[in-house]
Amino acid sequence: MSETKALASYVVSSRLEDIPADVRHEARRAIVNYMGCAVGGAAHPAVDIALRALGPYAGKPSASILGRADRTDPLHASLMNGISSHVYDYDDTTPKNYSHPSSPVASALFAYASVNRVSGAEFMHAFILGFEAESRVANAVYPAHYDVGWHITGTSGVFGAATAIGRLIGLSLQEMIWAIGLAATQAAGLREMFGSMGKAFHPGRSAQNGYAAALLAKEGFTAGEHGIEGARGFAAVQAAHYDLSKITTRLGVDFDLRENTYKPFPCGIVNHPTIDGAIQLHDTHPIDLGSLVAVRLRVAPLVMDLCNQQNITRGLQGKFSVYHGAAIGLVLGKAGLQEYSDETVNDPEVKRVREATTAVGDPSVTEDQAHIEVEFAGGRTIEIFVEQSLGNLNRPMSDRQLDAKFRDQAVLALPASQVDSLLDLCWRIDGVDDVNQVVEAAVPAAQVTR
Amino acid sequence: MSETKALASYVVSSRLEDIPADVRHEARRAIVNYMGCAVGGAAHPAVDIALRALGPYAGKPSASILGRADRTDPLHASLMNGISSHVYDYDDTTPKNYSHPSSPVASALFAYASVNRVSGAEFMHAFILGFEAESRVANAVYPAHYDVGWHITGTSGVFGAATAIGRLIGLSLQEMIWAIGLAATQAAGLREMFGSMGKAFHPGRSAQNGYAAALLAKEGFTAGEHGIEGARGFAAVQAAHYDLSKITTRLGVDFDLRENTYKPFPCGIVNHPTIDGAIQLHDTHPIDLGSLVAVRLRVAPLVMDLCNQQNITRGLQGKFSVYHGAAIGLVLGKAGLQEYSDETVNDPEVKRVREATTAVGDPSVTEDQAHIEVEFAGGRTIEIFVEQSLGNLNRPMSDRQLDAKFRDQAVLALPASQVDSLLDLCWRIDGVDDVNQVVEAAVPAAQVTR
Repeated sequence: MSETKALASYVVSSRLEDIPADVRHEARRAIVNYMGCAVGGAAHPAVDIALRALGPYAGKPSASILGRADRTDPLHASLMNGISSHVYDYDDTTPKNYSHPSSPVASALFAYASVNRVSGAEFMHAFILGFEAESRVANAVYPAHYDVGWHITGTSGVFGAATAIGRLIGLSLQEMIWAIGLAATQAAGLREMFGSMGKAFHPGRSAQNGYAAALLAKEGFTAGEHGIEGARGFAAVQAAHYDLSKITTRLGVDFDLRENTYKPFPCGIVNHPTIDGAIQLHDTHPIDLGSLVAVRLRVAPLVMDLCNQQNITRGLQGKFSVYHGAAIGLVLGKAGLQEYSDETVNDPEVKRVREATTAVGDPSVTEDQAHIEVEFAGGRTIEIFVEQSLGNLNRPMSDRQLDAKFRDQAVLALPASQVDSLLDLCWRIDGVDDVNQVVEAAVPAAQVTR
Repeated sequence: MSETKALASYVVSSRLEDIPADVRHEARRAIVNYMGCAVGGAAHPAVDIALRALGPYAGKPSASILGRADRTDPLHASLMNGISSHVYDYDDTTPKNYSHPSSPVASALFAYASVNRVSGAEFMHAFILGFEAESRVANAVYPAHYDVGWHITGTSGVFGAATAIGRLIGLSLQEMIWAIGLAATQAAGLREMFGSMGKAFHPGRSAQNGYAAALLAKEGFTAGEHGIEGARGFAAVQAAHYDLSKITTRLGVDFDLRENTYKPFPCGIVNHPTIDGAIQLHDTHPIDLGSLVAVRLRVAPLVMDLCNQQNITRGLQGKFSVYHGAAIGLVLGKAGLQEYSDETVNDPEVKRVREATTAVGDPSVTEDQAHIEVEFAGGRTIEIFVEQSLGNLNRPMSDRQLDAKFRDQAVLALPASQVDSLLDLCWRIDGVDDVNQVVEAAVPAAQVTR
């Protein structure tokens, strides 16, 4: 059986009771993490601009946008949810293929659930299936596909949204094959957009396009039957090397959700061990900033390629500065969205510590590790070696850490009482009667703008 | 200057008076040909299905769809125009890059002009610029990009629509650079969809996505500055080999419109010399079908690869049968849309001649050529050698032949009187005050369904 057909067949015939409990719990964690990102990013200018540009062309405002008071049609709501949930680079990552898998799937699903009655159990099932489809398609083409310059979140995401929505609208096997074909033929997104709003556009557009693919297939819009494995299909065209067996091997037995990770800090993942270590030093040692003389970092060489910006003035630049990461950890003991604002980047104390920080790339240090030495006047030093960075697969964020991250973001768009009730609903989403309850809890009474 | 910037700069600063008169006339020919295809394809099931699937999500029905009584928002109208104009594989081709360039550009422009006042002169100027941008981007990546499996009409089309609409909405240089970036990051469409509705989806989606890219850029949605030439941009990611100088060399001096061709017959272009020759035999010799014994074809070897289907029962199969092409030419003296219907494929006389036809691939015969020999009872034979197939660059369709092709298609959706007035308006489109006049002339009073 072809990979497209095998994947379609699994998605249309899977039963929720066959999904192991640990996978279901990981789905809840992914949804909590996603929802915090979507609500927290909802007032970002990228979302305002997209709504201003495309809102006049949108359909009946029947769907809610997570974190916003505005309403639009569900396809445009998928786009907006996708932009907001990725715009701070704070959403989840599957390290085996470097995609950010929840955004395309959940962005479409919450838009769908906002206008159609979906039980929490059906919703979670569709989320798990879409996540799995997308991540397996990504596995098949990774790393050649990513290395050449595809933003794999965009390209694989459209498969996730198409299969998840396709499952909810009850596509037949043939229709699901077409939906996958129509997803394949819309797979797009270039890494050249990194550093611009175009990056966050990718999961949004893939959510919207995957949703549309499912709708088209349902009405009988035909596509090639071999969208993934055909000689002119997704894998052959978009990857110099690929392994299609990664799509079908142990399908329904192994779940990529088990290998999902959540960023503790809203910046490039290679900075995480440094930030993690700096926060640990802050929390365990009295740090007299007045007498701090130097901060010396030994980091993986890749850090020096990607995050070597020291003279910075804007929050966005901070995300690419390992020096800023060390400084906010040591000075503030925290690295949330606020610590990557323009204001914090220009804070005199943060700036002084950042400028006192030096870094060297050391091939013996892995990308999950960092060594930090802080020297004070008089020669006293403290140091830490981070062996496994917080948030990686060996040291995952705990549920309580995900709660804290969620709150840190959600307060940007919602009143405190609503933050807690939304968080509670996300943790028990698979038990709710109608997921629109969750969507409505994620909508503020009035629009927040920034 | 980077290629993206150079192209953006040309599009924002070009003046219509600098476009040579022959290029403007070719633009009129391209628009006449496009309009016939769009109107003729408007009642195809693919358009019905797409409207049924996506219509409920569309915005205010302010825009007309060419050839249809339905209205929708202009982004969805772009999609529908793109599907209808390509669905019979009857639109134009630039042989140097094998794209079908008018559909993505004109599909977006007519949708735009349906809801915004645009003079014919501005419209034609935007069409020429969009066509040129798209075709030059295609030239830069052809043939590696096409050969690996990209449907270049979809991938390059989004650049055409973005620049054409961007010009009309008055994008600044910076905004045009972003629009091109947002086009690049949506460039998609796989040849794996050939033979399904997914193929016609490509120019439609690229029209819609390019239009959206321009709208987003206008409001300040940022994109990478090097969408085309960046290390992770369109050319490097989507072509193993490319030549960026083809984008900028003699930009504004040479025009790809001069190398545009129009299909005389709605089928794969490799069948055209055979059909052309068969029609010439029909028109110049009395052909007594009762005594016809055999038809022998000598054709380019590629024809045998692509169009070797003899036992056929459906119209769509006829497009891939050189035998059917010979039969309809000899029996009916014509190869329009009706001659590729299921009905004609199953016509007993057509079937008998098709089954009496044999073909051999001959490396000495080029893809523009065909040799036909017809044998009658008693041994009499007639023969013809087609040196240059009608519609190619050396033997272009005349304006009058384009008229006949237009009428053949437009009568499928419009009453005869409206066909003539629409044709007249298309030939003098650059002189009209408001292109919505042309759009309204392309809309039937009541919906035709098939």
